[in-house]
Amino acid sequence: MTATTSSTSGTASRPGGRSAKVRAAVHRAVQVVVSEDSLDVLTIPVIAARAGVHATTVYRRWGTVGDLLADVATSRFTGDLVVPDTGSLRGDLERYAFDLAKDLGDPDTLALVRATIGTGGEQGAAACRGERERGLDAILERERARGGQPPALEHTTDGVLAPLYYRAVFTDLPLTTEWARDLVARLLPDDDA
Amino acid sequence: MTATTSSTSGTASRPGGRSAKVRAAVHRAVQVVVSEDSLDVLTIPVIAARAGVHATTVYRRWGTVGDLLADVATSRFTGDLVVPDTGSLRGDLERYAFDLAKDLGDPDTLALVRATIGTGGEQGAAACRGERERGLDAILERERARGGQPPALEHTTDGVLAPLYYRAVFTDLPLTTEWARDLVARLLPDDDA
Repeated sequence: MTATTSSTSGTASRPGGRSAKVRAAVHRAVQVVVSEDSLDVLTIPVIAARAGVHATTVYRRWGTVGDLLADVATSRFTGDLVVPDTGSLRGDLERYAFDLAKDLGDPDTLALVRATIGTGGEQGAAACRGERERGLDAILERERARGGQPPALEHTTDGVLAPLYYRAVFTDLPLTTEWARDLVARLLPDDDA
Repeated sequence: MTATTSSTSGTASRPGGRSAKVRAAVHRAVQVVVSEDSLDVLTIPVIAARAGVHATTVYRRWGTVGDLLADVATSRFTGDLVVPDTGSLRGDLERYAFDLAKDLGDPDTLALVRATIGTGGEQGAAACRGERERGLDAILERERARGGQPPALEHTTDGVLAPLYYRAVFTDLPLTTEWARDLVARLLPDDDA
């Protein structure tokens, strides 16, 4: 849960470097196990074996699979979001939707989201949202700064973010660019009128 | 995965009755474990112990935790949906949204959905949607039969179903009646104009 560096450039002789290496190895092992194996074997001993570390090390540091997955998801979904700045609300929201569709359309990302939802409780769920809502809020705030009157964050979350997550996690439909554009068009119906 | 009866009125001397009793006991045990325990212990031996049956029985019948949870979710989310018939599209969609909000707002239901998403793959995801989309389709079809022009199923899924699932599974916000009504109002903005 702590925001230690994930850099692996440190040497093993530094405790920080060793700790970061273990963390990176365990995080990679989680992604491999959730992507490749049956989730029936999503246990700390299995993950530890994949990472080449002692299970006790993983138990001591993360406690439970749920806490570990929430940590991996937090690391994965925090800080990787570049808020689009295309010059218009519609352009920003379309870019945002395309980026999220591409991200959630990645099988490894989807496997991590599903596994984290399954084991991580509220903390895991929050980790899977990551900074997505904050990114939307930044787009809406920029539009207000331009003098525009964007929809409320709740309305935008329901109209753009929610369908992307629902379709990715609960269905096998593709997250196409055309569909993502439609979501934005329904949210902003009057812009081009 | 088979659609055996879940009636427990049979006697233990009938193989069907015994089989149905085992199934009911295992299904109840799954709900108890996903609701009360850490999902770290969501394994077939733990579920079997809770159900009072041999683990080998559960392995033989369901194979994996993912398959078992998909079966429980299918049983839980199929056949319990009454398609509202209030006389208007808006009324039907509001009733549908209220019912789904109430269902997903139940902690036991939410725990089952999250655990099934986490272990059941595409099959589990489909089980969690259950007949929800079919219910929406029936509402839209009835409106067409009335001579109305309802939104497309995809649009309605994105606008009503998706935000309800997203908010329930990924956030800790309440699924209030007011918010559910707003979802329908945004989908059908011109009805009262």
